[in-house]
Amino acid sequence: MTMRATLDFLLHDWIDVAALASRPRFADHSRETFDSVLDTCERIAREKFAPYNRLSDIEEPHFEGERVHLPQATHDATRAYVESGMLAAAQDYDVGGMQLPCVVEMAANCFFSMSSVSMGAYAMLTSGNASLLMVHGSPRQKEVFARNEFAGRWFGTMCLSEPQAGSSLSDIVTRAVPDGEGFENDPLGPRYRLKGNKMWISGGEHEITENIVHLVLAKIPGPDGKLIPGVKGISLFIVPKRLVDADGNLTGERNDVALAGLNHKCGYRGTTNTLLNFGEGRFPVRGSAGAIGYLVGEPGRGLACMFHMMNEARIGVGLGATMLGYAGYQASLEYARQRTQGRPVGPAGKDPSSPPVPIIEHADVKRMLLAQKSYCEGALALELYCARLVDEQQTGDPVAAEEARLLLEVLTPIAKSWPSEWCLEANSLAIQVLGGYGYTRDFPVEQYWRDNRLNMIHEGAHGIQGMDLLGRKVLMEEGRGLQLLAARMQASIAAAAAHAELAEHAQALSRALDHVGRATRAAWANGQPAEALANATPYLQAFGHVVLGWVWLDVARVALAARDRLAPSFVAGKLAAARYFHRYEMPRIAAWLAVVESRDRTCLDLAPEAL
Amino acid sequence: MTMRATLDFLLHDWIDVAALASRPRFADHSRETFDSVLDTCERIAREKFAPYNRLSDIEEPHFEGERVHLPQATHDATRAYVESGMLAAAQDYDVGGMQLPCVVEMAANCFFSMSSVSMGAYAMLTSGNASLLMVHGSPRQKEVFARNEFAGRWFGTMCLSEPQAGSSLSDIVTRAVPDGEGFENDPLGPRYRLKGNKMWISGGEHEITENIVHLVLAKIPGPDGKLIPGVKGISLFIVPKRLVDADGNLTGERNDVALAGLNHKCGYRGTTNTLLNFGEGRFPVRGSAGAIGYLVGEPGRGLACMFHMMNEARIGVGLGATMLGYAGYQASLEYARQRTQGRPVGPAGKDPSSPPVPIIEHADVKRMLLAQKSYCEGALALELYCARLVDEQQTGDPVAAEEARLLLEVLTPIAKSWPSEWCLEANSLAIQVLGGYGYTRDFPVEQYWRDNRLNMIHEGAHGIQGMDLLGRKVLMEEGRGLQLLAARMQASIAAAAAHAELAEHAQALSRALDHVGRATRAAWANGQPAEALANATPYLQAFGHVVLGWVWLDVARVALAARDRLAPSFVAGKLAAARYFHRYEMPRIAAWLAVVESRDRTCLDLAPEAL
Repeated sequence: MTMRATLDFLLHDWIDVAALASRPRFADHSRETFDSVLDTCERIAREKFAPYNRLSDIEEPHFEGERVHLPQATHDATRAYVESGMLAAAQDYDVGGMQLPCVVEMAANCFFSMSSVSMGAYAMLTSGNASLLMVHGSPRQKEVFARNEFAGRWFGTMCLSEPQAGSSLSDIVTRAVPDGEGFENDPLGPRYRLKGNKMWISGGEHEITENIVHLVLAKIPGPDGKLIPGVKGISLFIVPKRLVDADGNLTGERNDVALAGLNHKCGYRGTTNTLLNFGEGRFPVRGSAGAIGYLVGEPGRGLACMFHMMNEARIGVGLGATMLGYAGYQASLEYARQRTQGRPVGPAGKDPSSPPVPIIEHADVKRMLLAQKSYCEGALALELYCARLVDEQQTGDPVAAEEARLLLEVLTPIAKSWPSEWCLEANSLAIQVLGGYGYTRDFPVEQYWRDNRLNMIHEGAHGIQGMDLLGRKVLMEEGRGLQLLAARMQASIAAAAAHAELAEHAQALSRALDHVGRATRAAWANGQPAEALANATPYLQAFGHVVLGWVWLDVARVALAARDRLAPSFVAGKLAAARYFHRYEMPRIAAWLAVVESRDRTCLDLAPEAL
Repeated sequence: MTMRATLDFLLHDWIDVAALASRPRFADHSRETFDSVLDTCERIAREKFAPYNRLSDIEEPHFEGERVHLPQATHDATRAYVESGMLAAAQDYDVGGMQLPCVVEMAANCFFSMSSVSMGAYAMLTSGNASLLMVHGSPRQKEVFARNEFAGRWFGTMCLSEPQAGSSLSDIVTRAVPDGEGFENDPLGPRYRLKGNKMWISGGEHEITENIVHLVLAKIPGPDGKLIPGVKGISLFIVPKRLVDADGNLTGERNDVALAGLNHKCGYRGTTNTLLNFGEGRFPVRGSAGAIGYLVGEPGRGLACMFHMMNEARIGVGLGATMLGYAGYQASLEYARQRTQGRPVGPAGKDPSSPPVPIIEHADVKRMLLAQKSYCEGALALELYCARLVDEQQTGDPVAAEEARLLLEVLTPIAKSWPSEWCLEANSLAIQVLGGYGYTRDFPVEQYWRDNRLNMIHEGAHGIQGMDLLGRKVLMEEGRGLQLLAARMQASIAAAAAHAELAEHAQALSRALDHVGRATRAAWANGQPAEALANATPYLQAFGHVVLGWVWLDVARVALAARDRLAPSFVAGKLAAARYFHRYEMPRIAAWLAVVESRDRTCLDLAPEAL
């Protein structure tokens, strides 16, 4: 089964993206235009990305004091991506966009993530950066920066973390001070000088484009010259690597942004990751040190601006993790079909004189493949569902939009964390299917595994997602998001009643949903955040498995309903994956929730010196 | 807490190794001599191995057509190991050994595995190779080959797998034919010519020693010239890289063993891993192609000879996995104590104006550290327990020796598989504690994680261990091994009654033990191997967690009993790890056993085309 077959099924049979074409924004679209975008992206990914994925790992970016060198293949691939128009896929026609739904844009990007997640990152970061400016930037900032990013003339970055502040953005110390008299009258926006160090900046330096548009979080000191503690003091700035005039022409001036070092990573090596020094005086501008930056939006609203796009960014990370898992699944599936070894176990054991069979015939190999399928196809369905909610939030009627917003609040931590954990596990299983071969760099699966390990770390680490879910999302607005999600699950349970094959799974989901509800209440029973959140990660894991149990129930239901139109093996695969998930995975939920419900204090109370 | 403190506690307080000194074989020993061996190894590992572990990863072995080059540090470290006398640690005095118990030898080797598992592998493979020859070789073979290996003059390998036969040794096709007239009268053993390819051979080529002693599995064709199917046709041969005379002098002749390629691995890069061609004619010997090999033991008994040492080899793999986990635990613990970020969650949330705290104060970081501690210290205890059983088998009274043999049959699959899975998970948690830094190659934890991924694959892959446990070990000799293990667990449960703090854990273990017993019977209820073994891996995982639940209960009991002699924080750490394991980990058992008990056929019945 190809990934495309499952993608088409999920898009059309499961979430009916063609229905979006009835909305004014998407009125020029149809299933045909959506398919055509997917076809194009699939082809570019196959031709320009996949063949060079290992090269991007081996020929890691390197810096010789002047420039950061990337393989020519990375230049060629990103150029092909730019030429496809995908950078502005979801944007308005009048800025050169295609007005594609978010879900179709994300589906199309699947092919790049699956073919080479680290080569694809440059463009996806740029698209996210420019999209943010389209929401929060001034008309001139959109015209100069966002437009040139969508056109692929410049690429963009997001500069949040600092060496001492990764998960804790309230502790950033990059300072932004007004750049002299009349700073507020610059046509590009109020002009500041920034000084500070930004860590983990992907795409922070390269020669793919003539300029790089950094979006930087920094603090504007108060009247006493001190930084305001906490996130309230954070503002957002556009800091271009090379300065530009109000028409977007390069002025020939280098901004005071210097590469302080490349991070050498375990995986994801094709994406340059940098430590950048802003304003250290390495490249003085107009006679003085300090990187010139233009304020975006209101002062003190930087984090809010940045997090406006957070749902999409986190769905994007989850989808990247999913596609790495999927790539490993496909590679191990192909291997298992071709590799012969061992024999089936008969009633009298094995007959050594019979010929070896393809290893896909061994039950334990099928288990490892089916687990991968259930993780990766389930995660793909979840990510598409969430992306579809983004469309609903942006183009649905008011009630639907509000529901979508609430559902996204609750589902985004799962969309980010679940594939990061379980599609990584899928990558490990892919290695295991290949055995010793899987552990060598002659096959792609070990690289997928290394690449995917990043995803539990960036864009809100795993533990942060758990705190967000149990500490904010299931509580906010009187628990309405959680209630709404539960109602959606109940609706799926009710719909599944039409299929006797699903009764067992529907009951399992119903029990799991009740359980997570009880555990949520128990966690907060005495209202102490420290105690409730001590087990936020097991809660996140349990919640994620409940969500995936729901996704699989519903996907199986739709596969059954459409069975007359689908290949029998396709339907059988979906049912088997649903069954696998419900029987092998769902029982884990109770194990995770045990400590949540009892508000177990083993970790909370542990004295560090006992470790 | 240092690893040494826990090692000493386990060796002395928990399994009382000093008591072994009352046996004739170990009569010259005492706690002092054991400690002295550990001190020496700890020092050599710290000075010669640990500082070069990253180097061994970066400067991977490379072959320029003539020789395989390794970093000088690997030569120096292995030389220091040789000079320590550890190669023959467990051997008789009269062959230059120290007559150390197996458990002390393994404990001493922990330091090398923790400091650089891949640099330590050369010597450990050699020790295993020579020990095998001491059991199955002729007096002359012991004198010429084993003695020179124990002296570190030559190193050794184990050549089992072939490109088409990894997990399925019955399918090997390397042929061994008598080497002309009088082949049976060679003083080094019956002389054969071998032809075939051997894959995944660690230490298969290097210049550390002047010669390499390959132990090679091959088939002697029957009278019809055909190979006998299955494992019964397999014999064992000594195939030296350079030929030697009956006194062990190099004759100056190169044997027909050629390096066909180096495997480039995801991790464990410091250990050369090779494809070797035997007898292809690259180095003709005495005028013809074919590698000269000397039969060890009886024809057709090769696998039995090789597997005689299997328990020790698999305990060794488990211990290597454990120490990689431990290395990551220690690195992440140190980081978490020093790195400040974030603030504690109070009743009113976080106060951003308070200073950041060391991350070890966050409950979720403590959770990740305590999980690592419970996995790695628990695994260390298990491996030492198993090594102690090897000593019991070899030097105990007949009843004790027989019990040790039976317990080892059942425990060895767990000793191999459990740390391979869970100490790998520990390595992933160590990365997570370090966040982005953990994902860079500036810190050691990503290397530990990559290195450890090998351990689920070699020396019997994970799935093979499950089949061995559920398909053979718990059934053999009318289930006596399993019954004996259960009796040991019951004894620990009874002993724990002296400590009220342990009542909850004793009950949990008791329930889990009952559960695994029921599941074992249910799996075999209808006597169909295919159905029973379809879920052998989940059974292995559940069984492993039961074993570790037992280990932790007993370790906690002994820590409590010795609390007056131990540091309070040491005891608190052991109790917390036991509590963590029982509360957070033991509930997983039921999840794994669900499909075992129901003999779930989801994987078995799955048609490959549905994947």
